[in-house]
Amino acid sequence: MSSADIWPSDKIQSLFGVQHPIIQAGMVWTSGWKLCVATARTGCLGMIGAGSMKPDLLREHINDARNALAEGTPFAVNIPLLRGDVKELVQVCLDEHIKIVFTSAGNPALFTETFKKSGAIVVHVVPTAKLAKKCEERGVDAVVCEGTEAGGHNGVDEIPTFVLVPQVRDAVQIPVIAAGGIADGRGIAAALALGADGVQIGTRFAATQEASSHVRFKQAIVEAGETDTVLSLKNIGPTRMIKSPFALKCAEFEHRCASTEETRELLSQKRERAGMFEGNWEEGQFEAGMGVGLINDIPTVEQMVNRLLEEYHIAQMRIAGQQG
Amino acid sequence: MSSADIWPSDKIQSLFGVQHPIIQAGMVWTSGWKLCVATARTGCLGMIGAGSMKPDLLREHINDARNALAEGTPFAVNIPLLRGDVKELVQVCLDEHIKIVFTSAGNPALFTETFKKSGAIVVHVVPTAKLAKKCEERGVDAVVCEGTEAGGHNGVDEIPTFVLVPQVRDAVQIPVIAAGGIADGRGIAAALALGADGVQIGTRFAATQEASSHVRFKQAIVEAGETDTVLSLKNIGPTRMIKSPFALKCAEFEHRCASTEETRELLSQKRERAGMFEGNWEEGQFEAGMGVGLINDIPTVEQMVNRLLEEYHIAQMRIAGQQG
Repeated sequence: MSSADIWPSDKIQSLFGVQHPIIQAGMVWTSGWKLCVATARTGCLGMIGAGSMKPDLLREHINDARNALAEGTPFAVNIPLLRGDVKELVQVCLDEHIKIVFTSAGNPALFTETFKKSGAIVVHVVPTAKLAKKCEERGVDAVVCEGTEAGGHNGVDEIPTFVLVPQVRDAVQIPVIAAGGIADGRGIAAALALGADGVQIGTRFAATQEASSHVRFKQAIVEAGETDTVLSLKNIGPTRMIKSPFALKCAEFEHRCASTEETRELLSQKRERAGMFEGNWEEGQFEAGMGVGLINDIPTVEQMVNRLLEEYHIAQMRIAGQQG
Repeated sequence: MSSADIWPSDKIQSLFGVQHPIIQAGMVWTSGWKLCVATARTGCLGMIGAGSMKPDLLREHINDARNALAEGTPFAVNIPLLRGDVKELVQVCLDEHIKIVFTSAGNPALFTETFKKSGAIVVHVVPTAKLAKKCEERGVDAVVCEGTEAGGHNGVDEIPTFVLVPQVRDAVQIPVIAAGGIADGRGIAAALALGADGVQIGTRFAATQEASSHVRFKQAIVEAGETDTVLSLKNIGPTRMIKSPFALKCAEFEHRCASTEETRELLSQKRERAGMFEGNWEEGQFEAGMGVGLINDIPTVEQMVNRLLEEYHIAQMRIAGQQG
């Protein structure tokens, strides 16, 4: 079956030069060159997440990905704009002639022009239709609209994917990529029905063999059920996490209206690294989306993407009325 | 086009004897006999919401609906189980031989057997897959799984529709009705792609000519955008409302960790009636779902349902790959 037969829109495939409009999200301590390469080989868009990398390490990962992939295979780099050394990360992407950049957690006005001038495609991650419109005005090539189901950093307005996608679709002309809570092929079909041209998937890619995160993190995703994530740290920057001891402590702080200072102190140790990279369940932070309840194994990326495509096809046939 | 051609499942149509698997939600001060009748005439399932009715008034509405509809036309009654006089409401339904009962906001074990013995079909509204499973064990005929996008009373776990529906689908064999954030035909297609057999729609039905609520409430729905609802009153019973002055006060109370007593006092006046029935913007409570951002007019139910069906058909064709 050719790509054109199964996808309702070819905008994402054309924009990035990929076979499937499925994008592996940039995730701290998780999406290094191995995950990016494994994803790129399935015909989806792989991404190196710079969020947990110093500039030199990002350069290494970019080179490792290039060396592993056939020449010209597209892949992307994600830069969270809240990073203190964001300019250096941007410079690495420019030096390395990165062709696809996803910016997130910040103002799209900051670097879009810089990247566009370098010839790169720029995608920005937004939590509202209002910001999607602003991105379009700023010349961004596509938006990821990320619902509050998503793991990690999250919008303050807590708009879920189901209502966010159609509102973003109505607000902009540029391609729309849905994210947040998409963990199986039914979710892909639903996102496209809501008006998206493609999907970005995080947590489902984190629970794969090739993700660079600690196996304890992957197991925690598998074990977590429908009520096992919490959106917390709202007075610093809303973050969705698995309900580990640290996350429950954050939630408790919030419940009793602890001060921002107190929460910052709790957070001050390197919680993300301790959790997702070192697998320290007691002390660490484990960022994951609400899709955890739909994830029950740790396959290879290839196995997982094949399953996504099969599930998508079944959901597509179901909606098309070709099955009871 | 016959119903069988456009819907992927006929479980809801068979269960209720309706043409379309679209259910108008029971809503306080909004879903009286007129809305129920207008909905039933479109081939969807109309519902009288007993939540804001004394037992005698419920009986009146049931009789008015029966008198207006052709004999045998199916319609339902919704009973929120948290009502102090819930036994009297149940008795009215039994006396009047109501054939379809939706119970919500409470324990499905309470009245399911009573209604089943009377020959009625019983549907219960749930916010988690765990409770859906419990409903199935208790003999409930179908579940409405309602995401946190929904207006009014809401689950404490804040699970959105996008991840709730597939988890409920995987947890039970009985028919699954998706609710929360569904306000256009794209949402219907997405809900079915996620595994639902049908949908329950609230706020979109509230903004119609036939809803019994005050026009100020309907206008507030039309005016509200993507960030204009808030889930508040979490220490009493989470409730999603339009950000009216009262709702903003509730949110402020929550933000400063006000006591439950203080919040109860704020709530003590008849806020729901003042808002949705009397149209008092300053003092009243206006319960609506996050679909408000997708609602821009106040049509008749017939016009609105026709539009839902057209939009659904377009989304269905899009997913089926029959369009660019």
